[in-house]
Amino acid sequence: MDHRVSLKGGNGINAFSALTIADNIEAPSANHKPPILPGWFSEYSSIWPGQAHFLKVENILFQGKSEYQTMLVFESSTYGKVFVLDGELQLTEKDECSYQEMMTHLPLCSIPNPKKVLLIGGGDGGILREISRHSSVEQIDICEIDTMLIDVYKEYFPDVAVGYKDSRVKLHVIDGSVFLDSVERGTYDAIIADAFDPIRGGDDELFETEFFEKASRGLRAGGVLCIQAESIWFSGVIGFLLCSTEGPYVDFRNPINPIDPHNYGVSKQPLKFYNSEVHSAAFCLPSFVKKVKSKRCMKGSTENGWS
Amino acid sequence: MDHRVSLKGGNGINAFSALTIADNIEAPSANHKPPILPGWFSEYSSIWPGQAHFLKVENILFQGKSEYQTMLVFESSTYGKVFVLDGELQLTEKDECSYQEMMTHLPLCSIPNPKKVLLIGGGDGGILREISRHSSVEQIDICEIDTMLIDVYKEYFPDVAVGYKDSRVKLHVIDGSVFLDSVERGTYDAIIADAFDPIRGGDDELFETEFFEKASRGLRAGGVLCIQAESIWFSGVIGFLLCSTEGPYVDFRNPINPIDPHNYGVSKQPLKFYNSEVHSAAFCLPSFVKKVKSKRCMKGSTENGWS
Repeated sequence: MDHRVSLKGGNGINAFSALTIADNIEAPSANHKPPILPGWFSEYSSIWPGQAHFLKVENILFQGKSEYQTMLVFESSTYGKVFVLDGELQLTEKDECSYQEMMTHLPLCSIPNPKKVLLIGGGDGGILREISRHSSVEQIDICEIDTMLIDVYKEYFPDVAVGYKDSRVKLHVIDGSVFLDSVERGTYDAIIADAFDPIRGGDDELFETEFFEKASRGLRAGGVLCIQAESIWFSGVIGFLLCSTEGPYVDFRNPINPIDPHNYGVSKQPLKFYNSEVHSAAFCLPSFVKKVKSKRCMKGSTENGWS
Repeated sequence: MDHRVSLKGGNGINAFSALTIADNIEAPSANHKPPILPGWFSEYSSIWPGQAHFLKVENILFQGKSEYQTMLVFESSTYGKVFVLDGELQLTEKDECSYQEMMTHLPLCSIPNPKKVLLIGGGDGGILREISRHSSVEQIDICEIDTMLIDVYKEYFPDVAVGYKDSRVKLHVIDGSVFLDSVERGTYDAIIADAFDPIRGGDDELFETEFFEKASRGLRAGGVLCIQAESIWFSGVIGFLLCSTEGPYVDFRNPINPIDPHNYGVSKQPLKFYNSEVHSAAFCLPSFVKKVKSKRCMKGSTENGWS
């Protein structure tokens, strides 16, 4: 299911091990009800109680419900158009670039000559738009179960959904985890999972089991997986989890496949956020994160065929 | 005057040229009134209209007014104690570390053997606490005009105001700019200015004139100045402006004076945020910032004796 997180389009970006997450979260309490402010959209999340971020609504453009989820599109005062899924902020026009670009180019610039890429979720098309900037790529599979979501993005966010215009893209309307069952071992160079909320999934469950095994099977040796991994801070920053399968060493901190800034793919715009320097910098973690990470990694490393 | 910014304690940190600021700001409009939510403190700023950040108030601990400004201290639900100056959020216990540590160690770790440091503003004592971690430092002068602010911090934020316990600290109750007039040329290795809001100061005014000339005079050749320089994004990130006077080359990106993590100074805690990696990473800027910067720097470089 495509329940993505409320921090899509985070302002600052840090890539870090998902193993660090749980220590930074206080248990949501029933006392923490979302505050309401008429005329404003609330980004309140029970994961971060005691704080709320609001965007001023100018105009509601669309409200609807698919088989899977409710959708809302509004024009905000200063963030451009905003997409809301099941009440949670998914994307704003003004800052979607940072999330989409980092989520895509962190994995694809870390491996030589990526040819086959699988995107799980990401139905808005923004990550497709970013994959499209890589001329080495021959095949882009996307698993998105909610076709209505795609239609809404195509209607209201053409500069995001433009990714579907790339002729290498093939849409599979199927749950990504089910799709992976049918995939031949070692098929993909990279898998990008923009499909679930690592926190709402319940503790570390998602990071220990089935999904990682399946993704590992679907990747070639030395292939890479990128998952969004929530925030180490309270707001405005988002993390990514990057993994590689056993095989040729992947040095995520030093991207060996720098992006060609002159190849826009199907996009009409150059990159706004990502560059090689920002790539490497995303792996430089504040001291408090490093501390948690080193404790947790002792416990959680080298499971499920990941190196 | 000590009108510091509302983003003190920003979540992510980026150091960048202050010359980039103006392009990212929309003109405040009279239509943008701060929204009110009973029981919550609003971080709304007319600089970033159309959005507001709220912290839940558990308990108001102090309200008062000095000769210069109003002060409020409250216990928040999840950010610890919060200090508010003239209605603007100044500091929260939970994330003050990132601001204080970066503001201090970015300049002091970039030069060899800093001995004399001047802090302008920063009356809370947090930057003093951080300077205290540097054993090479022999003299720490601080200019803070509002002694009531210092007293309130000592009462409610002892882990921040602990910086005043360092015997090298000398408090000067005087405007920093006036103080600089009396300083002998070339006195300081570093000046840290935590005293004004670069945006509210009016366009580029502050970055072109008197203050920079005075600071330049007060610094030795190859001495450094650090000023907080607001946000390149919308929230959650803060920028710093770092300058060096003409003289021995200062390579801010590659700190030559790494901090000793075992020297806590007067603090009871190790560093929470800063480390050498984060220092260098703070200079890696997103593509859209680099673009603005390169345009503006053509115009504004090598004025006022700065290299």
